[in-house]
Amino acid sequence: MATNFFGTHFKITTWGESHGKAIGVVIDGCPPGLLLDSGIINQALAARAPGQKHTSPRSEPDLVEIYSGVFSGQTTGAPISLIIHNKNFDSSKYEPIKDLLRPGHANYTYQKKYGIFDYNGGGRASARETACRVAAAAVANLILNKYQINVDAKLIAIGGQPIASDADIAAILAQDPDNSFGGLVECSIRNLPVGLGEPIYAKIEALLASAMLSIPASKGFEIGSGFKAATMSGFEHNDQFQTDFTTNTNNAGGILAGISNGMPINFKVAFKPTASINHAQNTVDVNGNAQQFILPKGSRHDPCVAIRAVPVVQAMAILVIADLILANQLHKLT
Amino acid sequence: MATNFFGTHFKITTWGESHGKAIGVVIDGCPPGLLLDSGIINQALAARAPGQKHTSPRSEPDLVEIYSGVFSGQTTGAPISLIIHNKNFDSSKYEPIKDLLRPGHANYTYQKKYGIFDYNGGGRASARETACRVAAAAVANLILNKYQINVDAKLIAIGGQPIASDADIAAILAQDPDNSFGGLVECSIRNLPVGLGEPIYAKIEALLASAMLSIPASKGFEIGSGFKAATMSGFEHNDQFQTDFTTNTNNAGGILAGISNGMPINFKVAFKPTASINHAQNTVDVNGNAQQFILPKGSRHDPCVAIRAVPVVQAMAILVIADLILANQLHKLT
Amino acid sequence: MATNFFGTHFKITTWGESHGKAIGVVIDGCPPGLLLDSGIINQALAARAPGQKHTSPRSEPDLVEIYSGVFSGQTTGAPISLIIHNKNFDSSKYEPIKDLLRPGHANYTYQKKYGIFDYNGGGRASARETACRVAAAAVANLILNKYQINVDAKLIAIGGQPIASDADIAAILAQDPDNSFGGLVECSIRNLPVGLGEPIYAKIEALLASAMLSIPASKGFEIGSGFKAATMSGFEHNDQFQTDFTTNTNNAGGILAGISNGMPINFKVAFKPTASINHAQNTVDVNGNAQQFILPKGSRHDPCVAIRAVPVVQAMAILVIADLILANQLHKLT
Amino acid sequence: MATNFFGTHFKITTWGESHGKAIGVVIDGCPPGLLLDSGIINQALAARAPGQKHTSPRSEPDLVEIYSGVFSGQTTGAPISLIIHNKNFDSSKYEPIKDLLRPGHANYTYQKKYGIFDYNGGGRASARETACRVAAAAVANLILNKYQINVDAKLIAIGGQPIASDADIAAILAQDPDNSFGGLVECSIRNLPVGLGEPIYAKIEALLASAMLSIPASKGFEIGSGFKAATMSGFEHNDQFQTDFTTNTNNAGGILAGISNGMPINFKVAFKPTASINHAQNTVDVNGNAQQFILPKGSRHDPCVAIRAVPVVQAMAILVIADLILANQLHKLT
Repeated sequence: MATNFFGTHFKITTWGESHGKAIGVVIDGCPPGLLLDSGIINQALAARAPGQKHTSPRSEPDLVEIYSGVFSGQTTGAPISLIIHNKNFDSSKYEPIKDLLRPGHANYTYQKKYGIFDYNGGGRASARETACRVAAAAVANLILNKYQINVDAKLIAIGGQPIASDADIAAILAQDPDNSFGGLVECSIRNLPVGLGEPIYAKIEALLASAMLSIPASKGFEIGSGFKAATMSGFEHNDQFQTDFTTNTNNAGGILAGISNGMPINFKVAFKPTASINHAQNTVDVNGNAQQFILPKGSRHDPCVAIRAVPVVQAMAILVIADLILANQLHKLT
Repeated sequence: MATNFFGTHFKITTWGESHGKAIGVVIDGCPPGLLLDSGIINQALAARAPGQKHTSPRSEPDLVEIYSGVFSGQTTGAPISLIIHNKNFDSSKYEPIKDLLRPGHANYTYQKKYGIFDYNGGGRASARETACRVAAAAVANLILNKYQINVDAKLIAIGGQPIASDADIAAILAQDPDNSFGGLVECSIRNLPVGLGEPIYAKIEALLASAMLSIPASKGFEIGSGFKAATMSGFEHNDQFQTDFTTNTNNAGGILAGISNGMPINFKVAFKPTASINHAQNTVDVNGNAQQFILPKGSRHDPCVAIRAVPVVQAMAILVIADLILANQLHKLT
Repeated sequence: MATNFFGTHFKITTWGESHGKAIGVVIDGCPPGLLLDSGIINQALAARAPGQKHTSPRSEPDLVEIYSGVFSGQTTGAPISLIIHNKNFDSSKYEPIKDLLRPGHANYTYQKKYGIFDYNGGGRASARETACRVAAAAVANLILNKYQINVDAKLIAIGGQPIASDADIAAILAQDPDNSFGGLVECSIRNLPVGLGEPIYAKIEALLASAMLSIPASKGFEIGSGFKAATMSGFEHNDQFQTDFTTNTNNAGGILAGISNGMPINFKVAFKPTASINHAQNTVDVNGNAQQFILPKGSRHDPCVAIRAVPVVQAMAILVIADLILANQLHKLT
Repeated sequence: MATNFFGTHFKITTWGESHGKAIGVVIDGCPPGLLLDSGIINQALAARAPGQKHTSPRSEPDLVEIYSGVFSGQTTGAPISLIIHNKNFDSSKYEPIKDLLRPGHANYTYQKKYGIFDYNGGGRASARETACRVAAAAVANLILNKYQINVDAKLIAIGGQPIASDADIAAILAQDPDNSFGGLVECSIRNLPVGLGEPIYAKIEALLASAMLSIPASKGFEIGSGFKAATMSGFEHNDQFQTDFTTNTNNAGGILAGISNGMPINFKVAFKPTASINHAQNTVDVNGNAQQFILPKGSRHDPCVAIRAVPVVQAMAILVIADLILANQLHKLT
């Protein structure tokens, strides 16, 4: 099924496996006249680079090439093809474990669904695909910039402990270096005009929820008051309008009936701990025989996927908002 | 923007305002040969009927009429048009409040977005639209029945207090009858085959999250271990495969890399308290003058929208699964 | 498969069988603020009414009811549900022929595809479905009106003979009253702005071709110079630009590279003769036994489907242009 | 607007300008398990190679690289990214004519629509984009092969003169070497099962018409009896069923009510003469000043675009049929 795309008007289609020649994304529907060069995108990619401290030690610097859709430094309205070449990679280390069901991993379900699985480093299901989302979002953000809309994401907790600094992160990860930890990412969108979001099935929160749960390892999404809302009364929860049309509280998280009300949009995304850990785990092989799963020597190990998810959360939020800005044009006949 | 539809293959388009002549849904893409009559649908609608105890006292029994797509008691593959006629309704009571911004309501954002708002009883933004989803899902469920797939939703907490019985509900609501309460709904999907769900952007959890956050008043979604995953370590969280390919735990919530692994899918949805309450609230009118908002006498008051959301959560989950069953056909060339 | 819809931004979904309770259409994506009442639509429907001279003697006046999406005489941006109730109908006359393969008809292919066919009067495949297109186009035309864009269709030939008047039509049909005749419809779209149409796969001519070939009984489409272009040289065919940016000729038919150039768009659509005729024809039954097919007494007989196709050609062109006007908004960020 | 894609289930998105670094296509929705290597695609590309006799003298051999979606020689169900690198190209020769409106060309309409146009060799509007369609269709054809469905296209006329051999072509083109000629392509699809095609708006002929009119320079499409149908009577036109369920004639062109009836599908496509000719032509510049347009020395000149359109017609037909084969899976619940 054709489901490797995201967005309706600013539409991205991603392709590529983690250990193939390259990964890439085609943006279809980008408006013309936006100033774009590869530097803008590479800057966004640098923020998620796997070489960052605390994340997987893979040292490959991701550099994008723009293959189409830009002329004289401007977008032309034609599809923008972005390609990130992968480094040469020795896939032989995955050979010994290719018939084992990896706990928490894609290989069992892909194998059952498709009858075939490109097991090298996770194939298509690898988080590496998210680099394409970040690259595309760097382009989408040019649209948000026109309206001074700002999207910010940050890590607020790891393993249930709040994070205030890089040192906090390091301290938590050091507690059990062969294990991994879940984490919580918070995102806020500021300076949105009133009126973005589309009833009934393209409410902002529905699009954001879908975007966030499409990120590998995400397990939950909440908007505004979120799960706490389930414990509140209406009198506590209702935000009251003030004479400048802002509200005195923001339990709504900036959205009423799926449409932005001008207040900041705030949401949180929960990420599970990385499935790949340096502990031996019980599993079975494809024939159902009990086996031990041990990560091959030299495999990349990301102690907390939520760290690297921060720019991806931001990217997906940008893609959602860019799409809604375009959608909102459709009823403004000029 | 055309966003009043849900689903890709089993596609529903809903229409109608809460106090217009009727509401309805067109199902496009329903396979032929399913045994269908209006009784099947009316039974599903009865479960969400507003006349139920604990919910809005509106006593109208919703009865669906099948207008097309069924011949000799079977679906034909043609679009199925379902219509629920509304009862006559005196909209004059909404007249005095039509220029007030209702706290927690759609009227401000719709008015700003479209320049016009059908204010009677909430217009298109009313939860009444969800009756169409329940009706469509009763048809979709015929597909799930072929595979003995079962979707169950239930209310597990109101206002932060766990619910075990109808008496529990009544007791909590009685604590403050003019107020309203948030609630938590849990849903489980059993007997799913391995291999449903589509990478990358149509992962089961992404589709479910979108479906749930499109329900009015929902504020959060979590799958499997959910927000708790953010507090766990990888060694704790990873579900280990057993020789029958089940896992010993189910933190994954039945999904690996977006694709079902054969274990039950479990998720929770948080609902905010109903915005309409019988307390006076501060607000402003469309000109920004401070006003008091008081619900007109005789307005329907639903003390806990989560109660009525239960069958809607179930309906949306059924629609997601039916769509994925059809999607899964696309790579089985025969 | 969900294919009962047309359009991307101004999206219509039609439903209903020719002899069910009703037929209808849901318009999703209509901009708000357009002045609409049922009179506007009924006027458009009157132009295709089956009671017209020269066409099927079915005397039913089609009257539409607007069920949603209009408030205080204006569109609200919500889905517009239009319903046309069918008259009571005695389907028993189709009973004797239900197992015969009707030459030129849908019943064989539908039966093989779906395993079931609502044979009454052609079921879903009946040309009656086109009434919904005409109704929806009456709404779409409100968008064209804002830009003074005009779409006109007319019948220019029947059975290979050019038509200049109603009398010509009558004379040709009288030559063989139990037979039927093919016909040719011409359509022109005037006052289009430069720049409508979307590369690469939504070129205006591609959308028009699809729209026209979706009309029952259509067999061909040509734009501008059309099939004659295949016989011309480049020097003859190229339209030369003049100082006012018009061209001295219009072989392009108003379109360059899929995008309108400001000249009138002209196209032609060929319609086959109606399949239902009052001659006995050889056929087989569902078991492959040779049979004679004779139209049941009292069946409607349309001597030339192209006559009734004229308003449908016009309607489909309007729907295409309305969709492209909306699409063109997407790159005009304001 | 996002319109650089074709197909619903076997969905292709093309990108790239004629004189950029590369052109490419992403196939989303290809079923897993098909045997694929680049040789299969390069063979299909060779058939349209610009170096062929009678066509543009550009000597570049198009060679595709498969960047994703294939593992161990088989498709995996993941997106297939195909890239064709362009040769180095001196674009300076287009500089002098960049402000002239080229008769019959894209530059005026693109410039007006987007405010920017990549004028080198036609940019995105160049026929070079069709190489991507041919490449994608070579993959799609693997699906048709499973069912022994065969699609064949051939040139049947140039400049109004029928073609029986390569010598005929050469003779016609030699008559006026600096001019160009229109042409007619015929295509037939054999061995289709009964039941492909989807009502109402995805009738086979509607999808084919859209596909064909999306090919640059196409001006008309007809199916089966085509425009001749408009001159016939019903008694002449109706194909009569025989005891083996074939019909004695095939005016229907293999399609009844949009669905295949098992007879061969036959259609024709008309192509205008190439717009680029070696004759001086009157035109204006972007300011509306009268000018002469003369093709820069060394520009490629294709004397008859219909010659190179043959494999493109075939490719688009293959893409349509592959999509409908997948669509037909959707109601076969297994």
